[in-house]
Amino acid sequence: MNKIEHIGIAVKNLEEANSLYSKIFGKQPYKQEEVESEGVKTSFFKAGDNKIELLEATKEDSAIAKFIAKKGEGIHHIAFDVDNIEAEIKRLSSEGFIVLNKKPKKGADNKLVAFLHPKSTNGVLIELCQEIIINE
Amino acid sequence: MNKIEHIGIAVKNLEEANSLYSKIFGKQPYKQEEVESEGVKTSFFKAGDNKIELLEATKEDSAIAKFIAKKGEGIHHIAFDVDNIEAEIKRLSSEGFIVLNKKPKKGADNKLVAFLHPKSTNGVLIELCQEIIINE
Repeated sequence: MNKIEHIGIAVKNLEEANSLYSKIFGKQPYKQEEVESEGVKTSFFKAGDNKIELLEATKEDSAIAKFIAKKGEGIHHIAFDVDNIEAEIKRLSSEGFIVLNKKPKKGADNKLVAFLHPKSTNGVLIELCQEIIINE
Repeated sequence: MNKIEHIGIAVKNLEEANSLYSKIFGKQPYKQEEVESEGVKTSFFKAGDNKIELLEATKEDSAIAKFIAKKGEGIHHIAFDVDNIEAEIKRLSSEGFIVLNKKPKKGADNKLVAFLHPKSTNGVLIELCQEIIINE
């Protein structure tokens, strides 16, 4: 488990949140991306070696829409960079954590991702993510 | 606004949470500290260049106790490292953010800290923190 890769923040309106966080960081998001399969559109800011990901739901039944309906806007997850996501899924499952994805899935920002259920981590939705390396 | 200095996680029982997060990170917390003025005891883990701070309330009227009563355990705040906290307080106040501390206060881990109200930051409690440099 390496550095914090990013923190995900659930927002109602991505444009408004982009404008607010641009003021906080003193710069615009460096990337925006829609992840159709997850029902979200996202934007990314850099904070030193870390990233902040803002997420707006594009579908009513997406995880982000449900989160906001239940808890309101706010921090949705912490993502940690890992070297070998399949090995970490196995290791954490065997330690008794509830891993929501037995196999990693494709997330935003060219990553393979898997989530730990907040029930097993003091209410924190933890994402494991590994950069997808493309051999050309 | 530099890297994420740490993420604060509100927990009910610090010892149990230490045991859980030790499994996640594969190591023990490198520091434990009580901040009497804030009514909390804390422990710190390293994740690459970032830290995870677990916080348990030691007083019923502490911010962490109130947070857990309202929202349950979970991510409480994101702290960003800043070079000049007084300048950042002024800059963000003038940008319209609600800064809860006009003057920085002493926090855990040898830091001067100030908080932005979640109302002005999409539900995210943001901490600014600056290392206290002691000239000997």
